[in-house]
Amino acid sequence: MDFHPAPGADPLALIARHFAAMPPVAALQLRVDGFDGDALRLHAPLAAHVNDKGCAFGGSLGSLMTLAAWGVLTLRLHAAGITADVFVADTQVQYRAPLFADLHAQARLADGADWDGFLARLRERGRAGIALEASVRLPDGGIAAAAQLRYVAIANG
Amino acid sequence: MDFHPAPGADPLALIARHFAAMPPVAALQLRVDGFDGDALRLHAPLAAHVNDKGCAFGGSLGSLMTLAAWGVLTLRLHAAGITADVFVADTQVQYRAPLFADLHAQARLADGADWDGFLARLRERGRAGIALEASVRLPDGGIAAAAQLRYVAIANG
Repeated sequence: MDFHPAPGADPLALIARHFAAMPPVAALQLRVDGFDGDALRLHAPLAAHVNDKGCAFGGSLGSLMTLAAWGVLTLRLHAAGITADVFVADTQVQYRAPLFADLHAQARLADGADWDGFLARLRERGRAGIALEASVRLPDGGIAAAAQLRYVAIANG
Repeated sequence: MDFHPAPGADPLALIARHFAAMPPVAALQLRVDGFDGDALRLHAPLAAHVNDKGCAFGGSLGSLMTLAAWGVLTLRLHAAGITADVFVADTQVQYRAPLFADLHAQARLADGADWDGFLARLRERGRAGIALEASVRLPDGGIAAAAQLRYVAIANG
């Protein structure tokens, strides 16, 4: 996904508009809940993601975590002043418990991810990969689903 | 997802209706293209899954492969005369190339999956897990995305 906000624009509002402009993402009815510089939080209503058991569809959990990870990497690149396209390369998802409530996903860099090395490689070679982690929480704070994701950024500016 | 067709019903038509009844799956606009007893093929139009680059959204590829794998396991259990609920347990997806065409996903048991052992465990213990594989093809026959998936069936009949 391309994400090239104008200087001075609110990146969080722009990322929400960016999501809404893509038909498959608009269908998810997601809302950007917040970004603290580290974790990006997304929300989606259970009603749009319910399966026939009354709980959230696994594919929806995967999509929400994929978007949260894309978003956090895109926002961190924006904060670093780098214009790059961000692509998902591979994902692993563990579905741990059914979720009978709204979907709250969050993503951040993986523990041990080398942000400075990633930026250096991206600046030097125009392309670099980095690991992220995401989860969807249960209302009691437990984990409904967890994901480990690898993204590739390709500089274009 | 529950799938308990009446005896004699067309399982492929029922699975299509089953998909259409879930809001997040209906949003995918998928069509069941066929099942040869081994592989289940699903189709979805690019227009419903396009991102801002004009290619298919990664989350959509993941959802389609997840549904195809759920479907093939459900249909094979149906053919074996077993009534069970089928849950996705974990998935790994590799995104290999952007897809600028309609989505054609297929799924089957993984190479080396022990179908007879799976059925025996399910009958004996009421619960068993099995590995599946899925892919979304490029128009030239290459791979846009590949997935390895593990599902758990829980007997309920």
